Amino acid sequence: MVELTVDLGQNSYAILIGAGLMDGLGGRLAGLVAGRRALVVSNERVWGLFGDSVSRSLGEAGFKVVPALVPDGESAKSLDRAAGLYERAVDGGLDRRSPVVALGGGVVGDLAGFVAASYQRGVPFVQVPTTLLAQVDSSVGGKVAVNLPQGKNLVGAFYQPRLVLADTLTLATLPPGEVAAGLAEIIKVAMIRDGALFGWLEENLAGVVQLDQNALEEAVAWACRLKAEIVALDEREQGLRALLNFGHTFGHAVESLTGYTTYNHGQAVAMGMVAAARLASENGLLAESDARRLGNLVGRAGLPARLPGEFSAGQYIASMHRDKKVCGDELTLVLPLAAGRGDIVRGFPEDRLQEFLAGWLREGEQADGV
Amino acid sequence: MVELTVDLGQNSYAILIGAGLMDGLGGRLAGLVAGRRALVVSNERVWGLFGDSVSRSLGEAGFKVVPALVPDGESAKSLDRAAGLYERAVDGGLDRRSPVVALGGGVVGDLAGFVAASYQRGVPFVQVPTTLLAQVDSSVGGKVAVNLPQGKNLVGAFYQPRLVLADTLTLATLPPGEVAAGLAEIIKVAMIRDGALFGWLEENLAGVVQLDQNALEEAVAWACRLKAEIVALDEREQGLRALLNFGHTFGHAVESLTGYTTYNHGQAVAMGMVAAARLASENGLLAESDARRLGNLVGRAGLPARLPGEFSAGQYIASMHRDKKVCGDELTLVLPLAAGRGDIVRGFPEDRLQEFLAGWLREGEQADGV
Repeated sequence: MVELTVDLGQNSYAILIGAGLMDGLGGRLAGLVAGRRALVVSNERVWGLFGDSVSRSLGEAGFKVVPALVPDGESAKSLDRAAGLYERAVDGGLDRRSPVVALGGGVVGDLAGFVAASYQRGVPFVQVPTTLLAQVDSSVGGKVAVNLPQGKNLVGAFYQPRLVLADTLTLATLPPGEVAAGLAEIIKVAMIRDGALFGWLEENLAGVVQLDQNALEEAVAWACRLKAEIVALDEREQGLRALLNFGHTFGHAVESLTGYTTYNHGQAVAMGMVAAARLASENGLLAESDARRLGNLVGRAGLPARLPGEFSAGQYIASMHRDKKVCGDELTLVLPLAAGRGDIVRGFPEDRLQEFLAGWLREGEQADGV
Repeated sequence: MVELTVDLGQNSYAILIGAGLMDGLGGRLAGLVAGRRALVVSNERVWGLFGDSVSRSLGEAGFKVVPALVPDGESAKSLDRAAGLYERAVDGGLDRRSPVVALGGGVVGDLAGFVAASYQRGVPFVQVPTTLLAQVDSSVGGKVAVNLPQGKNLVGAFYQPRLVLADTLTLATLPPGEVAAGLAEIIKVAMIRDGALFGWLEENLAGVVQLDQNALEEAVAWACRLKAEIVALDEREQGLRALLNFGHTFGHAVESLTGYTTYNHGQAVAMGMVAAARLASENGLLAESDARRLGNLVGRAGLPARLPGEFSAGQYIASMHRDKKVCGDELTLVLPLAAGRGDIVRGFPEDRLQEFLAGWLREGEQADGV
């Protein structure tokens, strides 16, 4: 087991990573919170797999478990679902000392976290992420939210959990596509922040893809440690934390242009990272060999490395301008300067972006033999 | 004008109190926030009175005003209304730097504050309270919330405003009952925390009741200063802040037993304070003369000083046990030890409370000639 601390003063908390940790959930939670009723938010599939062990562990530690299942998928992150969870919490007798436990992926974590942040003005929150993406990314950092009809994550909070318990055994049940989605975020944090992790991934990717428990523990812990460091330095995303948007500006444009159905988030981020690296390389900011290393790693992880060619450069740029991370009229991009070092570039010239996209999209057409 | 600072580290903010301050809202806000679109939450009545001057002041400072009116009364503090305000904010083009301004009483402040706390994970919040109750109590301290069908304030946050602007001229439009409701909270904070304010109220109550602007400015500023001190010492209500519940344990029982319709919050708190003082006095914790001074002041403020006699001691106690402030099985009461000093008493013996209530309610019957 690896234990990390996210250092946020009196909001500090531990991230535990390892195989089989779920059985210890109740015991650890009992030492952290005063309440003895726990709202466990999950979905049918995840609850079917792990509901029994979580209930047993919490029950043995003296908790009364109030389960609350939500549908699978992004649509569960709604105000209506949050309202349903509040009512379940009241009816289950949860007071302000009672924890909310998120058992599942990023959707469950974001929704349950928003409910924990707001029920009775905030109750203890615990993340038990069961996807690789949630273990390395969404469960760390305290960003919780629900969607509005007008857009994703428009209502939420910065609300830190009391504990993150990442049981790597749960990853054995994931379909390969979801492992790749998590890998995209691990590659991301390596590329912008840690050349050693990038090198380790080049050596050990196969082990992670094959769900070798030692490789998983090392990859998850390493990625969490990097993210935790960034979050500790910039809890409320005023500066440094924006580095974590590497690949996301292009990625969100892909998701938005394709209506969030064609590619999952990890795939969109993967394309976005390669695009940003190519852009950086063409503008002399990144060695071409490092851009190629990123493309190779993304490909070996089973992730797409090229933006969809059916949209024009103009469509990509227009979509980027609608991204809420683009404050004001300026285009803010996270670009890699080396394999292991990214930077936030404000006011990147739009004509150069246009030129790059047009060229790259044309090159893609030719590669496809069109 | 009086300017106070609520000292909460990087969440510190100013409270400005005085006649005619509303005209300066735009100028002050422009110096505090980067966004130039403002969602102004209000209700028909208040917007009719002050909408023009607020719009003019904000407009002159370069803000585009997006007004959002909600119905009068507690029912506006719902998740549905919050959802409507989020959509208004998105449609109005508010980004994460855009302020939400609450223009109205406690209901508007609580609702708008919850929306500000959660829209885009938190945007700048400004309180422009237009009732005495909101100026001295709900606008200071950062407690924001909406209600659920199962109870009041069950969903919310601790979220500090960037600025509180209390224009005492707005109080001239209040019906006398609402002035008295605000006075109840001023008397409360005096009784538990500041004998000098208590004495000042005994001398100057008439001026406040007659809405003399100098008396109002002094009373509001003094009460805010006391509340701000308590909040600064205990932002998240882990200890000291519970002092502010003086009168509220009995008061909530009255509100709950009478279905929230017979008495307003200030009246219920007034009865609750006198009851708590009598209880303290009968148990040797408070001089009888101080209990009498409190009863007199409450009466002179036009507030009721006696619990409704149609409920039994058992009904009051059962209702108190349902109060969320009563954690676990113990009865926690805020009792005055002098005119100017209160204390939080945990585990007050229930039989003594029963005895006191039964005696006092009987005495009330006799006083009524029954």
